[in-house]
Amino acid sequence: MRADKRRLEFLKQDAVQGFTELIGLKPVSMKPGRFVTRIKMSRRLAQQDGFAHAGLLATMVDHTAGYAAFTLAPEDHRILTVEYKINYLKPVSGEFIECRANVLKPGRQIMVCEAEIFSITGRKKLLCAKAILTMASVPGDRVKGPKMHLRSLETRV
Amino acid sequence: MRADKRRLEFLKQDAVQGFTELIGLKPVSMKPGRFVTRIKMSRRLAQQDGFAHAGLLATMVDHTAGYAAFTLAPEDHRILTVEYKINYLKPVSGEFIECRANVLKPGRQIMVCEAEIFSITGRKKLLCAKAILTMASVPGDRVKGPKMHLRSLETRV
Amino acid sequence: MRADKRRLEFLKQDAVQGFTELIGLKPVSMKPGRFVTRIKMSRRLAQQDGFAHAGLLATMVDHTAGYAAFTLAPEDHRILTVEYKINYLKPVSGEFIECRANVLKPGRQIMVCEAEIFSITGRKKLLCAKAILTMASVPGDRVKGPKMHLRSLETRV
Amino acid sequence: MRADKRRLEFLKQDAVQGFTELIGLKPVSMKPGRFVTRIKMSRRLAQQDGFAHAGLLATMVDHTAGYAAFTLAPEDHRILTVEYKINYLKPVSGEFIECRANVLKPGRQIMVCEAEIFSITGRKKLLCAKAILTMASVPGDRVKGPKMHLRSLETRV
Repeated sequence: MRADKRRLEFLKQDAVQGFTELIGLKPVSMKPGRFVTRIKMSRRLAQQDGFAHAGLLATMVDHTAGYAAFTLAPEDHRILTVEYKINYLKPVSGEFIECRANVLKPGRQIMVCEAEIFSITGRKKLLCAKAILTMASVPGDRVKGPKMHLRSLETRV
Repeated sequence: MRADKRRLEFLKQDAVQGFTELIGLKPVSMKPGRFVTRIKMSRRLAQQDGFAHAGLLATMVDHTAGYAAFTLAPEDHRILTVEYKINYLKPVSGEFIECRANVLKPGRQIMVCEAEIFSITGRKKLLCAKAILTMASVPGDRVKGPKMHLRSLETRV
Repeated sequence: MRADKRRLEFLKQDAVQGFTELIGLKPVSMKPGRFVTRIKMSRRLAQQDGFAHAGLLATMVDHTAGYAAFTLAPEDHRILTVEYKINYLKPVSGEFIECRANVLKPGRQIMVCEAEIFSITGRKKLLCAKAILTMASVPGDRVKGPKMHLRSLETRV
Repeated sequence: MRADKRRLEFLKQDAVQGFTELIGLKPVSMKPGRFVTRIKMSRRLAQQDGFAHAGLLATMVDHTAGYAAFTLAPEDHRILTVEYKINYLKPVSGEFIECRANVLKPGRQIMVCEAEIFSITGRKKLLCAKAILTMASVPGDRVKGPKMHLRSLETRV
């Protein structure tokens, strides 16, 4: 129990770094198999017509579903995105964007997830995009990310 | 001819604003039905393991394919993303990320595009993701983006 | 009202011909925006391991979602599939296969649908696949199918 | 060498049974990482407007890509479809339908494939659909298909 809570707390912090820090992603709730995030909309996140950029919404479904999968993975595993498909139902122009993701099928190696994007203005909440995603759960020692490498690249710049 | 060139020049500038300015997207070449963009990788674009965030790559395929479609659309049309699917073949950890997109099937209302993501380090260029995308070409007067609205939102903040 | 009922009755019959007759597809219920179909499983519908062929399930989601879209289209329109994506969650080995589809976002030209595949044995009903689909609603006079052509081809054989 | 040839010959035969026998699928060529199949079009494979049913084309991309993956899998493995996405570019009304598939990224557990559908009439060959597919390569002893079960079901009928 307490371990679970610690794990969720860890994931909540792990979820915001690098790109997700840049876009202002905030985890708002999570439980095993579910994850919810929000972003406050601003001009720097918009595309050429002023709507939220489709890539921003893709980032939200990817990340939120990834962390929904994380909640069901062993602690020494990492989650990598295999693929996803997203349908944009309506352009997003609300004050906040919310993404709700859940694991449709858990698995040791493969997890299939769903995610929905809502545009929120005041009390109005509109479904604007829907995605199905395939995630891979991979032992951490097989994921050698280039953290150090990136740091050194930037020092050089 | 000259008109075409002017159009491509317009699209090259139009492609970088808001979210794509934030992530440092640069158009590198374009011709009717094709568009190529690049990003210099940095830590603020990475996910939790230091790789380029899957959402960043999705943003690149979305935007680059969208502008490939733009090159074939009437001047008074706007391009909106209907949907896409992206498969991640390898984690991206190069110095630069390149996206190459082309229109597989042009159409008055619907354009189907393909896009590929390459990780580039020195002379090494590695195919890391592939996407198929469906774009809608929409008369500009039917796309009322919230540019003003966003500006006023931010002034309030 | 009565017109609606007549329309649904027409669609129920229209849905079973050619390929869907070959695979034994049966519409089991429908209402505006929804369509449900069933197939009795048999060896001739199986793949190499004896499970229902993934292509059979794709046919069911395609057709069932297409007719869900049909229920919301003008009477003189035809529905053509733009694209879809399907995730297979579990191999299907039940006695019956059921597909439930609904329109997620209606539209004059584009309709986005969802569909689910269930494997049914006795009272056990298992979610085995899930799809998101994009359908085009097209004026009937722009869809010139090759019915006559096919008939003549077969006479020649 | 000879073993490879035997393996390909086995796959060529294995590819036609059950559902693929019903639809008249014929393997026409194969080599490691590639598979090509054909179907002669007929009315019983058509949808309501006389075109090849979208589900038939999905079956072809699924099966052809699956066997392209099979050519790279260990002999004691089976291939199961994880998911795919297919875009329909043009309705298919040719005499023959050809599907060409290749493995984009081989892997021990996951293989990503591409497949294209061509409509063929005389010497005319038209690209009509394109798909990206994710396949799982699974040890054969973990795939317990219901072959016997199906046989007994049918005896009962």
